[in-house]
Amino acid sequence: MTGIITLAHGSGGKTTNDLIKNIFLKHFRNDIILKSDDAATFNLSGKLAFTTDSFVITPVFFKGGNIGKLAVCGTVNDLAALGAKPLYLSCGFIIEEGLPFDELEAIVEAMGKTAKECGVKIVTGDTKVVQKNAADKIFINTSGIGIIEDGLNISGSGAKAGDRIIITGTVGDHGCSILLEREKLEISADIMSDCAPLNLMLEKISDKFKEIHVMRDPTRGGVAATLNEIAAQSGVGIKLYEDRIPVKDQVRGVCELLGMDPLYMANEGKMLMFVPEISAESIVNELRQNKEGVDACIIGEVINEPKGRVIINTITGGNRIVDMPVADQLPRIC
Amino acid sequence: MTGIITLAHGSGGKTTNDLIKNIFLKHFRNDIILKSDDAATFNLSGKLAFTTDSFVITPVFFKGGNIGKLAVCGTVNDLAALGAKPLYLSCGFIIEEGLPFDELEAIVEAMGKTAKECGVKIVTGDTKVVQKNAADKIFINTSGIGIIEDGLNISGSGAKAGDRIIITGTVGDHGCSILLEREKLEISADIMSDCAPLNLMLEKISDKFKEIHVMRDPTRGGVAATLNEIAAQSGVGIKLYEDRIPVKDQVRGVCELLGMDPLYMANEGKMLMFVPEISAESIVNELRQNKEGVDACIIGEVINEPKGRVIINTITGGNRIVDMPVADQLPRIC
Repeated sequence: MTGIITLAHGSGGKTTNDLIKNIFLKHFRNDIILKSDDAATFNLSGKLAFTTDSFVITPVFFKGGNIGKLAVCGTVNDLAALGAKPLYLSCGFIIEEGLPFDELEAIVEAMGKTAKECGVKIVTGDTKVVQKNAADKIFINTSGIGIIEDGLNISGSGAKAGDRIIITGTVGDHGCSILLEREKLEISADIMSDCAPLNLMLEKISDKFKEIHVMRDPTRGGVAATLNEIAAQSGVGIKLYEDRIPVKDQVRGVCELLGMDPLYMANEGKMLMFVPEISAESIVNELRQNKEGVDACIIGEVINEPKGRVIINTITGGNRIVDMPVADQLPRIC
Repeated sequence: MTGIITLAHGSGGKTTNDLIKNIFLKHFRNDIILKSDDAATFNLSGKLAFTTDSFVITPVFFKGGNIGKLAVCGTVNDLAALGAKPLYLSCGFIIEEGLPFDELEAIVEAMGKTAKECGVKIVTGDTKVVQKNAADKIFINTSGIGIIEDGLNISGSGAKAGDRIIITGTVGDHGCSILLEREKLEISADIMSDCAPLNLMLEKISDKFKEIHVMRDPTRGGVAATLNEIAAQSGVGIKLYEDRIPVKDQVRGVCELLGMDPLYMANEGKMLMFVPEISAESIVNELRQNKEGVDACIIGEVINEPKGRVIINTITGGNRIVDMPVADQLPRIC
């Protein structure tokens, strides 16, 4: 498709309707969106999870994905983090006038494809267009509804002393990949974003192991920010073992070169899981059966003191505090 | 509160958490948001409605409201249009670096206040910050979940020949007010946006009158675009009587001066309702008991032919076609 987005595409008139038909419905086709009015309708009963995320990443296209794939994965993973099966997504587009149709379609196509892979339906949407320089290419909001199965009780406040902390794979891939894309650094590292939906893998785990205390995806602020949040929310201490944290050699290399810490770099296809010691090894083995979980491992444990703090046992044998970051190393990472 | 938003406020670190605590939780306080993790959780059973809308209006503050009030009203009204009782909202903020805290707080305060008035809870949110000139002050996405009571079956495809078409008040107020604000026109008209939540008024109507065929709020593209959509979706014709369409004198004056048509101007606190002839007068009388419905009246009816077309019987006695607008008269109206 050739052409560009104009202000008329956000007008709510005929031009908007053509855009919806030719691009959005083409890739999001499902039984609910086709009969949608100003809202989608469906029957649902139980304990629901509801979340929202806006995506403003730059660049819009990156190794391992684009803003559309990221927008579906991000919201799906937030639902999965509470043990919810993601069912329905909304999408809100804010587009800068002048965006080429083919770029928009590539983004929308990635959303449709990723949604299909995860088993979620994009059921309602909205499109706004703003003038040149009033936005940066495209921003996408996805909100999502999922259903939580009986027996699961996963929350950031659920960590208990003795819990083992699992990471489902290597740390820092997304942040490092975006950094390289953006800064056009002359480093010949072939690092891809880990951007991926985790819900299907995690559903397999929660079907077998009902007792999962906490799950959270370490996105903005990385593992460091996420673990600090959980330590504060649960009122516990967290001890990490630096030598057990999986980091790809290339990511480690880039981080050392630039003075960045992979623990503070964003991930978009990883989950931190807090589980009882007794099932930790079995969960890791189960995770490793999945392509998103091959590098899963136990990286630490929950301790009683110091409450609200994350301590790391370093490779050189010392202990240091892993602080909550004040700001991110890299803005607009998601 | 003094100061401005910086990129650190969107980092997911300590600065973000402070912003959430000091501004968002202060105004959105409720039992669910306070225990929210990456998603809010609640129990719900029945036929649900789910919708999303992004707001990019400029200027952000206008007579009769601001982008925050609009963001709550818009999504609440989209749910109410399907006869759903709005329950839960999400909010996603995209903020341009440099926005003063006091402006953000005024917007968030309006959201909290409006949500309270409508009886909805803002239960989950997200904040992103982009650099100067990568967005225009602030964009807000709200998504919403509502529950549809048994017995209601309201949809854009439900219009039937013979139905009477009600508008709940005067037409064009929002569009006209924004036009005046934006263009700094030297017109001394005191026109306010009609931005208002309609759910409580409409719930009273649907409690008494179960047979409502269509409801839709005529926002972008105005009454003209909305009626054209309904005519197409229901496969019917629509006949309007120009002399019955309520337009404030000042709005009519400004429109005549500028060559605009109030039928194509956005409304943010009005609903179009398609109802059986037999109950139309009673519904209008009931609507008029409410402050958002004092100017309610019947403006037209559904006819068999020409299908998919909106015809207006003009004041001068002729008939003309009211076309679907190709683009809006005014971009970024919501």
